[in-house]
Amino acid sequence: MEIQMWREILIPYQQAVQELVIKFTSIRTENNKLGKYSPVELVDGRVKKISSILDKARKKQIPLDSMEEEIEDIAGLRIICQFVEDIDKVVEIIRSRSDMEIKYEKDYISNMKQSGYKSYHIIIYYDVHTALGKKRIQAEIQIRTLAMNFWATIEHSLQYKYKHNIPAEIRERLMKAAEAAHVLDEELSTIRSEIMEAQNTFQYKSGV
Amino acid sequence: MEIQMWREILIPYQQAVQELVIKFTSIRTENNKLGKYSPVELVDGRVKKISSILDKARKKQIPLDSMEEEIEDIAGLRIICQFVEDIDKVVEIIRSRSDMEIKYEKDYISNMKQSGYKSYHIIIYYDVHTALGKKRIQAEIQIRTLAMNFWATIEHSLQYKYKHNIPAEIRERLMKAAEAAHVLDEELSTIRSEIMEAQNTFQYKSGV
Amino acid sequence: MEIQMWREILIPYQQAVQELVIKFTSIRTENNKLGKYSPVELVDGRVKKISSILDKARKKQIPLDSMEEEIEDIAGLRIICQFVEDIDKVVEIIRSRSDMEIKYEKDYISNMKQSGYKSYHIIIYYDVHTALGKKRIQAEIQIRTLAMNFWATIEHSLQYKYKHNIPAEIRERLMKAAEAAHVLDEELSTIRSEIMEAQNTFQYKSGV
Amino acid sequence: MEIQMWREILIPYQQAVQELVIKFTSIRTENNKLGKYSPVELVDGRVKKISSILDKARKKQIPLDSMEEEIEDIAGLRIICQFVEDIDKVVEIIRSRSDMEIKYEKDYISNMKQSGYKSYHIIIYYDVHTALGKKRIQAEIQIRTLAMNFWATIEHSLQYKYKHNIPAEIRERLMKAAEAAHVLDEELSTIRSEIMEAQNTFQYKSGV
Repeated sequence: MEIQMWREILIPYQQAVQELVIKFTSIRTENNKLGKYSPVELVDGRVKKISSILDKARKKQIPLDSMEEEIEDIAGLRIICQFVEDIDKVVEIIRSRSDMEIKYEKDYISNMKQSGYKSYHIIIYYDVHTALGKKRIQAEIQIRTLAMNFWATIEHSLQYKYKHNIPAEIRERLMKAAEAAHVLDEELSTIRSEIMEAQNTFQYKSGV
Repeated sequence: MEIQMWREILIPYQQAVQELVIKFTSIRTENNKLGKYSPVELVDGRVKKISSILDKARKKQIPLDSMEEEIEDIAGLRIICQFVEDIDKVVEIIRSRSDMEIKYEKDYISNMKQSGYKSYHIIIYYDVHTALGKKRIQAEIQIRTLAMNFWATIEHSLQYKYKHNIPAEIRERLMKAAEAAHVLDEELSTIRSEIMEAQNTFQYKSGV
Repeated sequence: MEIQMWREILIPYQQAVQELVIKFTSIRTENNKLGKYSPVELVDGRVKKISSILDKARKKQIPLDSMEEEIEDIAGLRIICQFVEDIDKVVEIIRSRSDMEIKYEKDYISNMKQSGYKSYHIIIYYDVHTALGKKRIQAEIQIRTLAMNFWATIEHSLQYKYKHNIPAEIRERLMKAAEAAHVLDEELSTIRSEIMEAQNTFQYKSGV
Repeated sequence: MEIQMWREILIPYQQAVQELVIKFTSIRTENNKLGKYSPVELVDGRVKKISSILDKARKKQIPLDSMEEEIEDIAGLRIICQFVEDIDKVVEIIRSRSDMEIKYEKDYISNMKQSGYKSYHIIIYYDVHTALGKKRIQAEIQIRTLAMNFWATIEHSLQYKYKHNIPAEIRERLMKAAEAAHVLDEELSTIRSEIMEAQNTFQYKSGV
């Protein structure tokens, strides 16, 4: 039965997401313990739902046997940073690790999407050991600020609702909201060094 | 020894925070299960550190035997909403519950603090059963949007660093960041009904 | 649709289980903080699956409108103790609390079931606040030692497999295993005071 | 300050324990998803306390610079199995993985300690990536049945209380309890295949 087959296929992806969430979260925990500023604020992960995988395959006409190679975000990680500048730091950390290999990167921060979307994407290869043996899987890591993430989450649900045909008026409002989000990020960047120091003194324990 | 005494005093507060986090988080879980929009996006709780309690008591000259009555935020809850409008919904829910009693409310949303701080505060009384028996404690609930919370967390650490004397230049930047945060909230409010519907269709699973 | 109706019915039970797990777990946490021995070793909870509820209703010929009253273990809690003597302590704590009301108790420790099953059962009424309002639900609390629990979990799966007709030979083996479990409990009871003291000194951090 | 130095030293061990708990727990999750019996029932991990590390170093006269090599259980994992036979299965899984390397094994099951202690120990090398770079650390994995674990936890606290000089009478009682634990394991082993099948049908969801 197809559902059971997909459940088996997804096992290593679930395992990978769990391991990667632990690994990226520990960047924050460790910096806190060392009394240092952490470029990572929050980490979140998910495995794509079977229905979404099949939708994407149908839309992009991907045959069953190349799905796992071509659908790069079956395992998805999201790393939230406080400041735009922290995003580069996180990218550097990922590049320097030997337990994951970068397939490619996409910089939607320098090159904002037309919609207002900003985010840094990295596709990695990652090895997992499961009850079925060792397997190399792919995962998509999205790195963004809290403001970018807030906006992106909302835009994503609207894209979904309007099947990628968001009405002009709503698109305009979204664009204005995106601008406000970017202003917020820029204003905070100007006092980033003060905030970083403040948070080190404070043993910062975020509310979110 | 004083530290051990404080550890005992804090036991019911820790218990209360755990119970209240479960209770408010369930508002979101339940609405999701019912396929309805949830006014609660995220819930977070903490018990004030012993050192912060003693600092506050010293500064406000509160005698030891009235500390638990006068320091109202030993147990602290934070409820994050997507939209400004959701804050009222959450306040209504709290008012209608019989397992907590409201001491008073403070509306820093209609009446923004001079610093740019916006948030809705409710002080409640709440009964807990512990190894030491039943006890009525107080808790402070802060209700705010994600943008308000982001800003407030940063401002709080700067207040701490500069011992409530933030330099004029930084204060100005903070004020501008607060304005951007409020614009972001306002823009999103104008398309709130579209977003709410979109998230209901989408079975919204937030990234943060 | 029936499944959706059951999902709604189960919401307050899920909420209750979460709250009760927190409440009973805190007995252990608090005693540890106070440097005292905890009669509670482990707490576990679950909501009965919809299919199991319907099976039970069919078998016992319970009409739909009295299911929630007659099926008393829709919400189930399990409290594991180190020693037989601790079970009484936990029963005392439950009897003394005002946030739950006892419907009745069943003592399968003094009166072991023929199968070898030992456990202390308490059915309680408990109030929960949900998105749908306040509701009084029932929950079954099973209190047992680790050895009793280990045995009971295995016996339960065999009852299920053999549809309550476990072959004589296996029943005999189970009976012998139950006896060994009881000997283990008795031997440890004889040195209970030494172990309790040891664990207090040790700041006992159990492996399971 | 020494404490801060130790906090830094322990960071990779904490990271390793978190990753290994996830990895071994997933053996159970995956087998459940595949509808297969899992040899792993429970997984638990801890990092040795700084005070215990220093005690051990003092007692064994280990110099500071070889502590990390000679104290092999700074990172400790415990894997609990339902049946004695499952222990071998878990050992096989560990031997076959390429993300951890075995330093050596100790079989206290075939060769029970004089005290009654039974358990299978494996010391592994494991690579972790931390904020401080990549590091190879050691971890001790203890594999045992639930009954062995129950007994061992109690014996450990008594050893600690009596500073490894447990009075003869208590030692005797412990020995009898160990025998009961072994009888329990043996009786259950005789019906292991029935229980395994039963648990597969049952979609076994253990209480502990």
